[in-house]
Amino acid sequence: MYRTHTCGELRMAHVGQKVTLSGWVAHNRNKGFLCFIDLRDRYGITQLAFSESDNKDLLAKAVELGREFVISVSGTVRERESKNPQNATGDIEIAVEELTLLNSSKVPPFTIEDQTDGGEDIRMQYRYLDLRRNAVRKNMELRHKIARAVRNYLSDENFIEVETPVLIKSTPEGARDFVVPSRMNEGQFYALPQSPQTFKQLLMVSGFDRYFQIVKCFRDEDLRADRQPEFTQIDCEMSFVEREDILQTFEGLVKSLFKDVLNISMDEVPRMLYSQAMELYGSDKPDVRFGMPFCDLTDIVKNNGFAVFDQAEKILAINATGASVFTRKQIDELTEFVKRPQIGASGLIYCRVEADGSLKSSVDKFFPTEELAKWVSKCGSKPGDLILVMAGTTEKVRKQLCELRLELGNRLGLRDPFNFKPLWVLDFPLLEQDEETGHWHAMHHPFTSPLPEDIDLMQTNPGAVRANAYDLVINGVEIGGGSIRIHDRGLQEKMFELLGFTPESATAQFGFLMNAFEYGAPPHGGIAFGFDRLCSLFGGSDSIRDYIAFPKNNSGRDVMIDAPAPLDEIQLKELGISVRN
Amino acid sequence: MYRTHTCGELRMAHVGQKVTLSGWVAHNRNKGFLCFIDLRDRYGITQLAFSESDNKDLLAKAVELGREFVISVSGTVRERESKNPQNATGDIEIAVEELTLLNSSKVPPFTIEDQTDGGEDIRMQYRYLDLRRNAVRKNMELRHKIARAVRNYLSDENFIEVETPVLIKSTPEGARDFVVPSRMNEGQFYALPQSPQTFKQLLMVSGFDRYFQIVKCFRDEDLRADRQPEFTQIDCEMSFVEREDILQTFEGLVKSLFKDVLNISMDEVPRMLYSQAMELYGSDKPDVRFGMPFCDLTDIVKNNGFAVFDQAEKILAINATGASVFTRKQIDELTEFVKRPQIGASGLIYCRVEADGSLKSSVDKFFPTEELAKWVSKCGSKPGDLILVMAGTTEKVRKQLCELRLELGNRLGLRDPFNFKPLWVLDFPLLEQDEETGHWHAMHHPFTSPLPEDIDLMQTNPGAVRANAYDLVINGVEIGGGSIRIHDRGLQEKMFELLGFTPESATAQFGFLMNAFEYGAPPHGGIAFGFDRLCSLFGGSDSIRDYIAFPKNNSGRDVMIDAPAPLDEIQLKELGISVRN
Repeated sequence: MYRTHTCGELRMAHVGQKVTLSGWVAHNRNKGFLCFIDLRDRYGITQLAFSESDNKDLLAKAVELGREFVISVSGTVRERESKNPQNATGDIEIAVEELTLLNSSKVPPFTIEDQTDGGEDIRMQYRYLDLRRNAVRKNMELRHKIARAVRNYLSDENFIEVETPVLIKSTPEGARDFVVPSRMNEGQFYALPQSPQTFKQLLMVSGFDRYFQIVKCFRDEDLRADRQPEFTQIDCEMSFVEREDILQTFEGLVKSLFKDVLNISMDEVPRMLYSQAMELYGSDKPDVRFGMPFCDLTDIVKNNGFAVFDQAEKILAINATGASVFTRKQIDELTEFVKRPQIGASGLIYCRVEADGSLKSSVDKFFPTEELAKWVSKCGSKPGDLILVMAGTTEKVRKQLCELRLELGNRLGLRDPFNFKPLWVLDFPLLEQDEETGHWHAMHHPFTSPLPEDIDLMQTNPGAVRANAYDLVINGVEIGGGSIRIHDRGLQEKMFELLGFTPESATAQFGFLMNAFEYGAPPHGGIAFGFDRLCSLFGGSDSIRDYIAFPKNNSGRDVMIDAPAPLDEIQLKELGISVRN
Repeated sequence: MYRTHTCGELRMAHVGQKVTLSGWVAHNRNKGFLCFIDLRDRYGITQLAFSESDNKDLLAKAVELGREFVISVSGTVRERESKNPQNATGDIEIAVEELTLLNSSKVPPFTIEDQTDGGEDIRMQYRYLDLRRNAVRKNMELRHKIARAVRNYLSDENFIEVETPVLIKSTPEGARDFVVPSRMNEGQFYALPQSPQTFKQLLMVSGFDRYFQIVKCFRDEDLRADRQPEFTQIDCEMSFVEREDILQTFEGLVKSLFKDVLNISMDEVPRMLYSQAMELYGSDKPDVRFGMPFCDLTDIVKNNGFAVFDQAEKILAINATGASVFTRKQIDELTEFVKRPQIGASGLIYCRVEADGSLKSSVDKFFPTEELAKWVSKCGSKPGDLILVMAGTTEKVRKQLCELRLELGNRLGLRDPFNFKPLWVLDFPLLEQDEETGHWHAMHHPFTSPLPEDIDLMQTNPGAVRANAYDLVINGVEIGGGSIRIHDRGLQEKMFELLGFTPESATAQFGFLMNAFEYGAPPHGGIAFGFDRLCSLFGGSDSIRDYIAFPKNNSGRDVMIDAPAPLDEIQLKELGISVRN
């Protein structure tokens, strides 16, 4: 037997017991006639003691043990002379009587500690050692805990987890599919699902009523730092529901997760219309951990002879509470921040509301105090605040001011990752128009239902049609999104037509779904949550990669196993494909 | 709101309440001045009543409702005049006051009943309607229930579910991989995992200690009736364990599943060596719901002048209890059964032990009563039994007699699908030799450890090396299998060498794993269960397809969505591949 206990288990109550432990040598402190080893496993660290007086040969063996060697020891639990209250097992140690070397280890390329000396690249190449670090393994444990809580909550709410297929059919709509050549059907390909969307809708047609699945999805996109070619989704769908039913059900899920996993009691989730979110925060996923909404100064500041404002479509301000103390240098930094190419603003105008109430602006020349007072009044600024103003086209200035607001939130310490502020964003536009081609695209996907009262607008003013859709945003991150679906063949056909499908192409790709709608499709809707993102949010991290056991890098490579890789000619031939030159 | 209750919920206690229900029209019985509709949803069926006297217009609408129309109704719960004790809601009906048609339906291509008139092909094409059948949906509910029970049991036992990647690297060893061309790494391919084997071993190197995952796996094999190109596995691994620890842990899992899901208390699972299983039942997955072990008659019957026996390497018998009553016709049928090309025996010899103890054999000519008496004694036959004998090479006669034994089990009603008899089969051979090439193959996979006492035989007599491996067999079906793994780089290299890998090819394919073994790999082992098969076993069915929501057919096609399908040239070009002609 390799162990009677784990390395996280022994306490004063075990003193005097004979035990066997197995684990990794985390530290080996050789004191000459004494030697202490910290033995580590998943559950904790236990101190092993060897001494010359007890057993000289054993001591000699022990001092030879290097970092990350795997050993098994037997001995007697005893009270420590100098206890370590930081460690759950810190009251005791093992007086070792037997020692077995189970495996040796080369010196690891980085230290196996919470704070490691290894860079990202080397840690990814040796991911199996990176995962041995407590901090990284804790992330995976958190992920497991959340998944379990999701499954238990939804199962208790009568949802059934159904596995949908991974080998499906390619649909050129949306992001690029990964495809899989079929050997048995030469010249034909499966595709990996970008989401189980059509299958979950078919399950509703089948009367499954409440479905969920924690499921891998795949998108062959050019990767950004926070995207992975394979990612995990909590995919859900319900029948005979209106939007309100879905919001209630999944607000319940989210509250229950915060309670179960982080012991946080969450209030009712506030709601905001898409149009409000854009107006007040310049974003469809506003971070509402802090205020600082946009104030529209357009009417107040135009036609005062200041060209920047006079020529702008929109002039928006935010009031940074208590930020009048910002130095000139700090304000210059903010100006540089918005002028970076990623944001692309031409400048930033400020107005300090000094502690004594006096006003000091970078555009004093054009705006005397009585004019600036209008800004203060409009923004509701108090002495000690700082008003920051940007101008431009509505779309651009919203985006830019949104970035500035978030940056100010960072600088003012208003974005504590463990202060969770969820928000429902409602009534998204159904369609967006490609600026160049004029084509309409589905903002979510082509199965999203318009709001019933907007259906008529589909013919006359597609851009004004609101979707019966909703996003769950937490701390400025889109955690989930969904919609009431179209369940009527006629409406679905109209939607495909608007999106530029010919009847033939719609049938070729989605005929099975439209046929299904003719056999008694119930009203239904659903939501999908980004599971990787949810885990990183709960962990207080920005990086989803830290919450994926074996992530890929920004080129879509797994550097540990060295994938993807070339195939040999025999394999290609068997699959009926060849590589282009 | 679409409903206040489900169609399975209302009882006498609800009489007098106003309720709203939604669902599908299962039956519509038009009695002229009355009309009764059975409204169905996932949860049950509730009777709706419409009458001329209550509301003539509503009745007129109701009689028009066809099968599978989707409706929502409001009305008052009342006690039925003629109750239906077969139905949980059979005491009540709804006196309908409002009726909304939510969706109409074409006439479905087959009846949505437990016993349907639809053939396999049409049901697969309209799988969304097939899944609407109660019997099929129940299978998915069972699957969900088992998955949940597995996760809860293992999580409570401190196992962590970790998602391993789906886009990995192709390894020509074993079955064929499905591959995925990488657009971002042109000319290179991912592969879909046949199992997460190497990843779960890496997680052990990472100190995860106890891992599991319910996970999709992929094998591009020519399909048999009970195989699917994508299938689901319960994948498990543990560190610091010996075989006994694993058997105990997963015997616990299996017992708990039978208890939780089927309320069956299971005794300790018996164990059998591979060599015994082959000797007694001619199979490494014996069905031990019934006895009928093989009796070796070789020494007794050889050299009696009967050429069939004299020329055979092995002569084996089974004793079919109580089967002496089999007619000549029945015995002829058994003879035909073993002579079918799939089995390929040249004939079958019998010896009846009549009720009066007299013996009657098909080879009386060669074996007088005193010789036949030896058969009876060897087989432990009693009056009323039937001895069936086959001869040939050891391997063939075992296989053939195994098939006969199972067939007899069927005919004698000894294979009740709800009588569950699990069995551990232990000590499989590590390697098997290709008859033609003489090459050694891993019987399980190349990471399986030999029994410690057999390691030396790897050089001298590879065929005699036993693996530290185990299968869980239930009712003659292999439900799970696993092994203690190799955790030592040297031994793993020796294994690859035996399997004909060059050091270079071993490094190219499994270098990451062998490197990992040099950084403190703990002793570890695991097991994987076929989840689809487990579900069908629990459901009392032979067909895994009945327990998969959207299965593929024997050509690997999903006939509902019509996948796989050709790709267009643009997509192929982007992926850097072309289809061969």
